[in-house]
Amino acid sequence: MAEKNRMVHAFKQTNDRISGHGERNIQVLKDALAEVDGEQASDMYGKGKIIEDFQEKMATYLGKEDAVFFPSGTMAQQIALRIWCDQKDVKKVAYHPLCHLEIHEEDGLKELHHIEPILLADKTRVITLEDVIALDEEIACLLLELPQREIGGQLPEYETLVAISEYCREKGIKLHLDGARLLEILPYYGKTAEEVCALFDSVYVSFYKGIGGVAGAILAGGRDFISGSKVWKRRHGGDLISLYPYILSADHYFDERVGKMGQYYGEAKELAALFNQCDAVSTRPEQPVSNMFHVHIDMPQDKLEELLSEIYETTGVGLTSYTRPTSETSCYFEISVGDSYHEVPKDKLEYTFNLLNERLSTKSGS
Amino acid sequence: MAEKNRMVHAFKQTNDRISGHGERNIQVLKDALAEVDGEQASDMYGKGKIIEDFQEKMATYLGKEDAVFFPSGTMAQQIALRIWCDQKDVKKVAYHPLCHLEIHEEDGLKELHHIEPILLADKTRVITLEDVIALDEEIACLLLELPQREIGGQLPEYETLVAISEYCREKGIKLHLDGARLLEILPYYGKTAEEVCALFDSVYVSFYKGIGGVAGAILAGGRDFISGSKVWKRRHGGDLISLYPYILSADHYFDERVGKMGQYYGEAKELAALFNQCDAVSTRPEQPVSNMFHVHIDMPQDKLEELLSEIYETTGVGLTSYTRPTSETSCYFEISVGDSYHEVPKDKLEYTFNLLNERLSTKSGS
Repeated sequence: MAEKNRMVHAFKQTNDRISGHGERNIQVLKDALAEVDGEQASDMYGKGKIIEDFQEKMATYLGKEDAVFFPSGTMAQQIALRIWCDQKDVKKVAYHPLCHLEIHEEDGLKELHHIEPILLADKTRVITLEDVIALDEEIACLLLELPQREIGGQLPEYETLVAISEYCREKGIKLHLDGARLLEILPYYGKTAEEVCALFDSVYVSFYKGIGGVAGAILAGGRDFISGSKVWKRRHGGDLISLYPYILSADHYFDERVGKMGQYYGEAKELAALFNQCDAVSTRPEQPVSNMFHVHIDMPQDKLEELLSEIYETTGVGLTSYTRPTSETSCYFEISVGDSYHEVPKDKLEYTFNLLNERLSTKSGS
Repeated sequence: MAEKNRMVHAFKQTNDRISGHGERNIQVLKDALAEVDGEQASDMYGKGKIIEDFQEKMATYLGKEDAVFFPSGTMAQQIALRIWCDQKDVKKVAYHPLCHLEIHEEDGLKELHHIEPILLADKTRVITLEDVIALDEEIACLLLELPQREIGGQLPEYETLVAISEYCREKGIKLHLDGARLLEILPYYGKTAEEVCALFDSVYVSFYKGIGGVAGAILAGGRDFISGSKVWKRRHGGDLISLYPYILSADHYFDERVGKMGQYYGEAKELAALFNQCDAVSTRPEQPVSNMFHVHIDMPQDKLEELLSEIYETTGVGLTSYTRPTSETSCYFEISVGDSYHEVPKDKLEYTFNLLNERLSTKSGS
């Protein structure tokens, strides 16, 4: 714990960070509201100009008939799966073992909706067409998360997506996109959001990952699907009298950052290469396919945190505020390239990675 | 529809309003944030100083062991009832036929939690001790809404509350308070929030009724109950990465208005008397027991809206932006006294009510 506290403290003192868009503080909302006319009326339980305009903007961007703003992706995705299950009268869906619904939602899908998930692929790789074909139970919906966050943000090849989409349509299986980080993968695929979303029946996108808003999500799909999702949104307690704090910030940062995803992707590749040059370090994926990747280091957690503390204190550059053990002798952390990386002076970055490599060579015992 | 549009338009042009705290616009949030240090860190999935401090403040104010901030009362109350049902392994609760859960939540309690409500009392009056004693089925929880909003904000006598509370404890029935407007009834009862809440096992309060915040709710109760409610909050999709826009505004307007509930209550009685002096008008309750009441008028909706339009255009004082029919020949609207009433010049108010009475005497045909 001493090393952890020291590292967290040292990280907080750094002026430069390689990950993210900067602090998640109240200023993020204040900046988003600065130019907004205070006389504008609040949305009211899902109605009104602010929410309707943004929903229409996102439906158009994603190439879907309609869209609805949700306070959270957790709520949006459970509801999407529930609608597809009810429509087919089959209470089974399929998704990856490290799907957000499986590991981060306290089993809401099972406890609230009584939907049984079938886990496809394994914890080291993304879902393939073969996994879907091999399914021997009837499912209402297949959920694909692009990129697969918990394994460093891996992606299937685009041809695989197309093949899975065609197979599902043929078999009457609805295809849902967990696109929490959809915008972040478009540069790698070289596709528009609309092109990717056309492969899916329903799509969720988040506004506080690459976009860097305060919170909130959009669920998009056909008109009937979205109309039904609004009923469930009210049942879940998500049809708030006012969602504008999230909508206005989502809209503000969407406009600010939607055009920067290519830059973040390029910088993620550059940064991953810097990590991979270091002794005892490997990134996953080796070459990122979005703005994110995981950094795996062959070193016990306490040793690594001591080492990182020294580096932060010496260089003023923060690499991560936490590490997670993968074994007794190894650990990892996640990088999501945003606005901050671009602002780290190149010489400080070089100095930091030289020092990291030097210390790892000395200490990792390799 | 022509009358309705004319009335809505005329209402928007008025400079003085007798109900509410003013426009629900973005300025409400901007004002709440104006003095907040932008460097303050966001709450993170239910953790952090902003959310923890406010939860502690509200637990203390309500006299409960612990409290948790929810994005909505819909979510908070379904979860409270679910916990009590699970604890007793009885999937039945009792509440009023016009309970929020019964008429405003698209049956979330039934569809998500499979809890069966038993309706007590009837649509014209509040629940009595006799209603509870007469229950011939086992229930896990009784929900009381104080005041009963949909019938004008009526209240049982305090002695009845105490007797119901004692009876429920004796019978092993949990008592939950829908206290969306709890603060608003304290002056009538002459009790503190803590004293009223001591009669209940769990309590929900809202921050956008009398308090006039942006959105959000607190659920308070024992430590285990609150700990369990946080798991369900995540399942519902309410454990947002950042709830601070609602928390900061709730806190701001709580401090600003918690001391004004006595004033609002006194003014509501004054205002109800003004309505009751008019021909064809009666308020419900006749004498308010909080800041709210309903105004019933014996006149067909279209005629009333035409008449109100004229009054708004003539006086510049807005009485209501909507009316709801109760029959072919009568309708009603709701008044919640807030900061706005106090700012209406007394002579304009007198002129308005004189005109209202004059027009009603002429047109109501009585």
